[in-house]
Amino acid sequence: MEEIDIVRKYFSADKFVMGAGIEIVEVRKERAVVSAEIGERHLNATGTVQGGMLYTIADFAFAVHANYLHPVTVTQNGTITYVSACRGGRITATATEVHVSGRNTVCDVSVTDENGNVLCLCRFNGFIKPDDRSKYFG
Amino acid sequence: MEEIDIVRKYFSADKFVMGAGIEIVEVRKERAVVSAEIGERHLNATGTVQGGMLYTIADFAFAVHANYLHPVTVTQNGTITYVSACRGGRITATATEVHVSGRNTVCDVSVTDENGNVLCLCRFNGFIKPDDRSKYFG
Amino acid sequence: MEEIDIVRKYFSADKFVMGAGIEIVEVRKERAVVSAEIGERHLNATGTVQGGMLYTIADFAFAVHANYLHPVTVTQNGTITYVSACRGGRITATATEVHVSGRNTVCDVSVTDENGNVLCLCRFNGFIKPDDRSKYFG
Amino acid sequence: MEEIDIVRKYFSADKFVMGAGIEIVEVRKERAVVSAEIGERHLNATGTVQGGMLYTIADFAFAVHANYLHPVTVTQNGTITYVSACRGGRITATATEVHVSGRNTVCDVSVTDENGNVLCLCRFNGFIKPDDRSKYFG
Repeated sequence: MEEIDIVRKYFSADKFVMGAGIEIVEVRKERAVVSAEIGERHLNATGTVQGGMLYTIADFAFAVHANYLHPVTVTQNGTITYVSACRGGRITATATEVHVSGRNTVCDVSVTDENGNVLCLCRFNGFIKPDDRSKYFG
Repeated sequence: MEEIDIVRKYFSADKFVMGAGIEIVEVRKERAVVSAEIGERHLNATGTVQGGMLYTIADFAFAVHANYLHPVTVTQNGTITYVSACRGGRITATATEVHVSGRNTVCDVSVTDENGNVLCLCRFNGFIKPDDRSKYFG
Repeated sequence: MEEIDIVRKYFSADKFVMGAGIEIVEVRKERAVVSAEIGERHLNATGTVQGGMLYTIADFAFAVHANYLHPVTVTQNGTITYVSACRGGRITATATEVHVSGRNTVCDVSVTDENGNVLCLCRFNGFIKPDDRSKYFG
Repeated sequence: MEEIDIVRKYFSADKFVMGAGIEIVEVRKERAVVSAEIGERHLNATGTVQGGMLYTIADFAFAVHANYLHPVTVTQNGTITYVSACRGGRITATATEVHVSGRNTVCDVSVTDENGNVLCLCRFNGFIKPDDRSKYFG
């Protein structure tokens, strides 16, 4: 089984993310990429992608990346700045770790629409648990 | 129609929030309260409530409160600090505006489990649009 | 020696805070209060209190409070929302712990001018070091 | 007069930053760089660079960059994640705008010691005032 398939299998147990139709596109040392095709179910009362959906896809990109790089990482803190609204198409979240030191990791995520317009910018602080087994690779 | 029913009717168009099973419990000048009964669909790969679900319920409590207090408010920035994990039961998000000045509002939201344990603490910065009509009350 | 004098003595070694003329006004279980008389040296190029000065007084209120409540606490993360500008008089920062769980503490600080107007709102995440001796009280 | 000298002249009126010994090293479209030689006056009670000093140098790098790129920009929101402690030498803050849309700008700043170790990572949200005159260039 390829590395990405092991990661996909692990996260298939994330019911909230699966229910939101978010898929893992790529995961490697430099970054993780996840995406979702926007439908009616992702929209808010004004007909744009709901802020919680944008946060969810960003946080998931972070989770995929951090847990790939480190054994078991939990989000301590997240911040999101909304930049522009989106009404449809495919949205993509790209996570890149910007720093790791001891048990603390800092990761930036940007979410874009299918034309490359930035929808929101996120930063996550994660805590790496003192566990030497990888969540994915046992 | 009661005030809360007008608000509920307006937000019934928020498909993402409705899909997540989040309900409006209370909305008045001092605060807004929303809640959801946790089920399988809200859990992550470790069996606890997904971080995106916690953010979504918090952001929604903010949206309900801010749009009740002001004509049309959009989230500019959100921060979330995760405090403890939750495996089930009913979770509740309570939003309280902590400051408003000109077109800027700051709102704190705490999300608790059914025993009152804090799950996460959020702060939102919103921008009040220069529109004199209420989203709810025309 | 009174409790507050022990705390003042400890923080007299904080040269940056002392240089900025920040004084400890009150410290007890519920909150810590620090303040400073604004002078020329605290202003930015537009003649209002510099954003770094506002952050510094807020972070210091948090440090005084957290280190009073817990043995040794370090700031992991801080956020500041600027609400209004200030040109002079005495400014006051009041810190209140909003949550503590395990080694993590969350603290809110508001900074006001001498008329009680809010200048900025801050939230800090601190890590409580595994050390059973108090920084102040040995 | 060279461009950077005009910027330096403008910010010489920032008394708080000048008092902290922070200098403008570089300012151009891609980034702004400011730095300070750490002395006794910048230290906290544990002998490391005070958190407020780290925030101040980061916020100043953002101010220099944003006001260079846009007429008049004010900080709305700042976040800082502390990564490692520093006891001396020269520290440098580098600001890069990561997004601008309408009147909103998002800027990342990292502060490093003289060996290139990251001390803290910051993100700022700024509001660009509707004023067509440059603060620096009339």
